[in-house]
Amino acid sequence: MEDFTYRCGTKIIFGKGAESQAGKECRGFGKVLLHYGMGSIKKSGLYDKVVESLKKEGVEFLELHGVVPNPKLKLVREGIELCRKEDIGLILAVGGGSVIDSAKAIAAGALYDGDVWDFFSKTLAVKKALPVGAVLTIAAAGSEASTASVITDEAESRKLHASGDVLRPVFSILNPELTFTLPAYQTACGIADMLAHVIERYFSPSESVDLTDRMCEGVMRSIVRNARLVMKEPGNYDYRAEIMLAGTIAHNGVLGTGRVEDWASHMIEHELSAFYDVAHGAGLAVVLPAWMEHVSKKKPGQFVKFARNVWGFSGSDRDAVQAGIKSLKDFFMELGLPATLKGIGIGKEKIGEMAGRCTENGPLGNFVKLGRKDVSEILELALENG
Amino acid sequence: MEDFTYRCGTKIIFGKGAESQAGKECRGFGKVLLHYGMGSIKKSGLYDKVVESLKKEGVEFLELHGVVPNPKLKLVREGIELCRKEDIGLILAVGGGSVIDSAKAIAAGALYDGDVWDFFSKTLAVKKALPVGAVLTIAAAGSEASTASVITDEAESRKLHASGDVLRPVFSILNPELTFTLPAYQTACGIADMLAHVIERYFSPSESVDLTDRMCEGVMRSIVRNARLVMKEPGNYDYRAEIMLAGTIAHNGVLGTGRVEDWASHMIEHELSAFYDVAHGAGLAVVLPAWMEHVSKKKPGQFVKFARNVWGFSGSDRDAVQAGIKSLKDFFMELGLPATLKGIGIGKEKIGEMAGRCTENGPLGNFVKLGRKDVSEILELALENG
Repeated sequence: MEDFTYRCGTKIIFGKGAESQAGKECRGFGKVLLHYGMGSIKKSGLYDKVVESLKKEGVEFLELHGVVPNPKLKLVREGIELCRKEDIGLILAVGGGSVIDSAKAIAAGALYDGDVWDFFSKTLAVKKALPVGAVLTIAAAGSEASTASVITDEAESRKLHASGDVLRPVFSILNPELTFTLPAYQTACGIADMLAHVIERYFSPSESVDLTDRMCEGVMRSIVRNARLVMKEPGNYDYRAEIMLAGTIAHNGVLGTGRVEDWASHMIEHELSAFYDVAHGAGLAVVLPAWMEHVSKKKPGQFVKFARNVWGFSGSDRDAVQAGIKSLKDFFMELGLPATLKGIGIGKEKIGEMAGRCTENGPLGNFVKLGRKDVSEILELALENG
Repeated sequence: MEDFTYRCGTKIIFGKGAESQAGKECRGFGKVLLHYGMGSIKKSGLYDKVVESLKKEGVEFLELHGVVPNPKLKLVREGIELCRKEDIGLILAVGGGSVIDSAKAIAAGALYDGDVWDFFSKTLAVKKALPVGAVLTIAAAGSEASTASVITDEAESRKLHASGDVLRPVFSILNPELTFTLPAYQTACGIADMLAHVIERYFSPSESVDLTDRMCEGVMRSIVRNARLVMKEPGNYDYRAEIMLAGTIAHNGVLGTGRVEDWASHMIEHELSAFYDVAHGAGLAVVLPAWMEHVSKKKPGQFVKFARNVWGFSGSDRDAVQAGIKSLKDFFMELGLPATLKGIGIGKEKIGEMAGRCTENGPLGNFVKLGRKDVSEILELALENG
């Protein structure tokens, strides 16, 4: 087992009607910046509930909205200006992973003398940030308890991440009811994302990580089971709750304790999103199986466990590797997710450029180290995989 | 799934030589009370390392030692006096669960105007406490990241618990090397304790807790596997590391999120320890299978899962219940733990009194509610069970 330091201090407030506690949790931080997306929270009534809760507790706040999927640097810069000018004490993100990531970037930038993009482009660790709170509306990214923020610089077509323990939200409010009306495709993308967060940790070069291996497998099995149920009954509280809690646990870091994590598939997907603005979960559904095809040839061992302990495969070890990968592919297809780059409208034109860019600072991943050629091969495989 | 609020802010510093970070972690809290047991940390050299680390960082400290297993109220009272007189800012517990529990009780009492025993005898929630840090020497109680403290009032033969989120240590240092030289019996008692912490959460009356069911099963499987390995190779770092991390995860509360927990077996065991001063883990090894025999008659469903998903039983559902319980019993015996009350020198004389006392405030447990008669039956069963 690897040495590690782990601390996740995010207070998770989980349950029916939990958004009514937003105001109480925001008390004592000073002026709040209410940060959200394109207005779906107004249609759903969530906006009114949160505002009512803030007012009830006498919390002063102002607003910045307009976050889009693959959240943009431009709005982050606006938010930083606003925080400084208005002396904001806490950023309350109401939305999915994109809104929370945008809030985290603003929080880091507001207390930094230089340019906020330094944290992303120079992978500078974030040491100081304004506190962030969240009311989560999509079970997916795990940003509600994670250390990371992923932001896209549209001008440069770059999607990069920054991280730091101070970026974990101080509180996150999770009410599964808020996810009842999510379109099936968004639900499916979220499921692919959380499953990917476990997979990125499960395929580790670390030895003797039995405990977290078993926990990863348990979380993956539960995601698969409840994903199937929730697609059939999107208004079922318990299925939504299982998926929502899984999204948080998949990415709060506990499944990575004592392990070296991989993250190659995420880095490759970020290139797809940067160039083509695809939904992150859809991109992952395409990249992950292709990544598996590629690396399992070099290191089949963990893939045998993956097949047996996640998908219940009972055949020979030799057949297990392919069986596990096929199960994952079939599962994504069952959820209505794309299986190939072509399926998300991406051709082979930029494969070389994308592979070059995501390996420009050295090889990707840890389970197997991937060079530019490997990434190209994975993307070629993803082109018509399936 | 049940509504819940969960926050575990304990910073876990895990790895080889991690105790050298004690001083750094104690900085900024003011004067430290170094709290430990009967001196085994002096023999092992750990005391010198911790003191050196404190001195290196210029941390002022004084000492209170003498904690024994089933830690005593008398020493807690002494500690409270000392903290007040010396204006202590942090209590550093160096030892196992008993030392950490004692430190937590002192921490709560030092900031409370009334008698510290109120928290235990009146189950008053602890709302304020001095910060506690820990250097863990035994993988067992999970106190290093839990909200609870269990203290024994010798004068009254009462072993009771108090809890509060503020009792979670601010940091806990876990170096598996420190557990290499633990006697086999103590290692085994620790394993029984951590397994019990998962079992108390696994057998829940809550419905739709699939995610945490799967996580509990994964943690139990890993404990069983690594327990067998560590008993054979007590000096193997990785096996010790797996068991040590499992002890923390078993009791930091994550496995109980969204579930109503049980805790009847712990309450019954506390009576054994209060009257007979038995090792907690040994008491649990006796009580748990008897509790299972009793409650599985009323609610067999979860026991079928327990047999299949923890112990790999593949026979019929009808046979599964007994197979699972037998596997647990056999496992405890394999570890060299007692199987019966007689095996720990306890006869039937006080069964009635113990059953009466632990149910005096109402029924025990939540998976199945147990009255005085039920507890008596469980203890009768434990008398010569096996």
